[in-house]
Amino acid sequence: MGVCLVTKTSKFDSAYLRRVNCVKTFCTIREHGWISRSELADITGLSRATVSETVRELLEREFVREVGSDNTQRGRPPVKLEVNPTRFYLIAVEIDVGWIVVAITTLVGEILVQRREEFRTHDYDFVLNLCVSTVDRLLRQQSIHRDDVLGIGVAVPGQVDLNRRVVTFAPNLRWRDVSLADDLERDLNLPVLVSNEAMLGAMAEKWFGRGRDAGVLVYVSVKGGLGCGIVNDRSLFLGVSGSAGELGHMSIDPKGPECSCGSRGCWEVYSDEQAILDRAFRALRTSKDSLLFQWCIVENRRLTVDDIVHAANVGDQTAMEIVRESGWYLGIGIANIVNGLNPDMVIVGGCIAASEIVFDEINRVVQERGLQIPAEKVSLVPTGLGDKVALMGCIALLLDTLLEQPEGRLNTDSVREN
Amino acid sequence: MGVCLVTKTSKFDSAYLRRVNCVKTFCTIREHGWISRSELADITGLSRATVSETVRELLEREFVREVGSDNTQRGRPPVKLEVNPTRFYLIAVEIDVGWIVVAITTLVGEILVQRREEFRTHDYDFVLNLCVSTVDRLLRQQSIHRDDVLGIGVAVPGQVDLNRRVVTFAPNLRWRDVSLADDLERDLNLPVLVSNEAMLGAMAEKWFGRGRDAGVLVYVSVKGGLGCGIVNDRSLFLGVSGSAGELGHMSIDPKGPECSCGSRGCWEVYSDEQAILDRAFRALRTSKDSLLFQWCIVENRRLTVDDIVHAANVGDQTAMEIVRESGWYLGIGIANIVNGLNPDMVIVGGCIAASEIVFDEINRVVQERGLQIPAEKVSLVPTGLGDKVALMGCIALLLDTLLEQPEGRLNTDSVREN
Repeated sequence: MGVCLVTKTSKFDSAYLRRVNCVKTFCTIREHGWISRSELADITGLSRATVSETVRELLEREFVREVGSDNTQRGRPPVKLEVNPTRFYLIAVEIDVGWIVVAITTLVGEILVQRREEFRTHDYDFVLNLCVSTVDRLLRQQSIHRDDVLGIGVAVPGQVDLNRRVVTFAPNLRWRDVSLADDLERDLNLPVLVSNEAMLGAMAEKWFGRGRDAGVLVYVSVKGGLGCGIVNDRSLFLGVSGSAGELGHMSIDPKGPECSCGSRGCWEVYSDEQAILDRAFRALRTSKDSLLFQWCIVENRRLTVDDIVHAANVGDQTAMEIVRESGWYLGIGIANIVNGLNPDMVIVGGCIAASEIVFDEINRVVQERGLQIPAEKVSLVPTGLGDKVALMGCIALLLDTLLEQPEGRLNTDSVREN
Repeated sequence: MGVCLVTKTSKFDSAYLRRVNCVKTFCTIREHGWISRSELADITGLSRATVSETVRELLEREFVREVGSDNTQRGRPPVKLEVNPTRFYLIAVEIDVGWIVVAITTLVGEILVQRREEFRTHDYDFVLNLCVSTVDRLLRQQSIHRDDVLGIGVAVPGQVDLNRRVVTFAPNLRWRDVSLADDLERDLNLPVLVSNEAMLGAMAEKWFGRGRDAGVLVYVSVKGGLGCGIVNDRSLFLGVSGSAGELGHMSIDPKGPECSCGSRGCWEVYSDEQAILDRAFRALRTSKDSLLFQWCIVENRRLTVDDIVHAANVGDQTAMEIVRESGWYLGIGIANIVNGLNPDMVIVGGCIAASEIVFDEINRVVQERGLQIPAEKVSLVPTGLGDKVALMGCIALLLDTLLEQPEGRLNTDSVREN
């Protein structure tokens, strides 16, 4: 169904039930398109009356529209429904170290335009202004009126306090306690939701990706840091203050090297992009026949994880060994997750996930070290959403929040107060 | 509220909502006793109509009864409700290595009688027959008719397939794929539910213990093995095949000693009762002035973790060091859990949890190694339910399942089919 509710409340009441039905209906229309009310009832399992009611609400909010109705014919076919493709827009912003990407999408998550901007500063105000100007520019360029934009979702590589709407700690950005959502809202005059990029990755997989049918899904984001998002059934596992999923800081060797978080031997230390690059730099000292040596030392190019994966894929022995070892460490942490959370799917995102060697190794380690039942049950796959996964997560968050709110527009006050 | 639903279905519909309200109402009556319908509505936040309806159902099933109504007076006080204290009984069975405990309780979880039996075999049939005969004997002894027993809950230290109702793997009992629930049902002619003891511990804490108000609660059971139960909001986190919580088999040193599960350096290897005892035996080689040496070597007593805790509490240096080191390893794993799941409460059960030194060390490690936000948010406490925690978990499981089912009696067929 692709439904994923960020449940901010534990109140199971009839209002909550109506929200759930609304999300279910919208997602089914989005996934199937051109669908009649009775088909909707069959697929969702909701009663005809409930479907009529939720569809009425979605029509009223102009999130969906009727199509294919032909009133002139006898025995006319039932009216079909589809998500309104151009009535409203959503904006996704991904912030990472040294770059941002801004995308404008339709209500079905189709990216109409996107723009990447690079920079060499950690200054919060600089990045904030860059986000604002990039959004402004894209809106102008596409001649999209602000009133037609339902909201902006922002992905950051750090912990976010969902109640205070503050990025409390983003070590790689060197930000602490910045009011990103409020600042963007003020400067852009549009409702803004900010969340952790790995949590958004998990939402993206549930709404749009390979995890649509997963019961328990863990998304592992391998980037400048290593973060996870956990989806249980239809809900993101948030923890009590919204920082669940920081499994990158599970220590897999309590006496191992220091981590930026202050602990020792964290999974991230062995497995994030920096760890993979460090592994490459160490190998280059002795592997002068490697493609990596050629690119990095002889041609003086800036080495990336993409380069390492590419070299491994064309059979470079040094690169293959780097990738294999990285897969081993990823596998150790994933085996811990498999034992602890018994997911049916673990999806890995980031450049390294494009390597088959990595997945062979992760699979091997999980089968070797995981408990039999959870290890047999789990599928370990790379993201199918590529580098769009965080952006799509922003869209999922916006849709999820919009549909949960009975008002026509996104009301971030209610998010704030929860 | 103490509500904890083992949600076997993801179907949020009006029937599900009715179940939730029923559990909510029952728990509130259980916790408050002598409560009127209007007080119930105030406390639960349910409408008067919903309260009337759920109370009617609970009265019909004789789970609650009306008290304190005085029809002779003018302006008579409203009828009060309480859980029917003696109409029905529940049976809890805890199975561990070398012993079982069987308890008969009321619907409010009050233990009327309990009996412990010890043995020195791993033979499944022997243990099964012992459970059957002990239940039979207690029922006869208390003159309780089988018709008045609503069900039997069984706690086992191992993985349970909740759909097939089979203990798939209980390493310390040396059981694999035994149909414990079906076998007990056949021999006792009563409905039986079997679950993992750490998951039941988590349910017990949520229903009856310190975790009643916790949002995200992790129960860590330190016994012959090390298992965890995770409660998120009101639901037990089961994983896709019911084996979630096996965090004892998260590797905290991938190159560490072999574990019985086949992996290496599992948390359990450093932290369960055997690990604590092994630590003591190693220390005894050089600590001839320790109380433990006196008890174990001179008096030839069988050393237990209780002994070690006792010696540490009276200031025995060797015992204190053993306990402190055990706390350090427990703290490493708990810090991982705190980072990964962002719980507001971690409750530790088992003999070692009775030591303050252990908690001082766990707290120190979690504050030192946990990420700031989740580490500040979490309370780390020992169980307040002592060695009754698994039994109380069995009662919680029975009540939870009974209330979720609209039939008068516990129907384990529906559990089987789900």
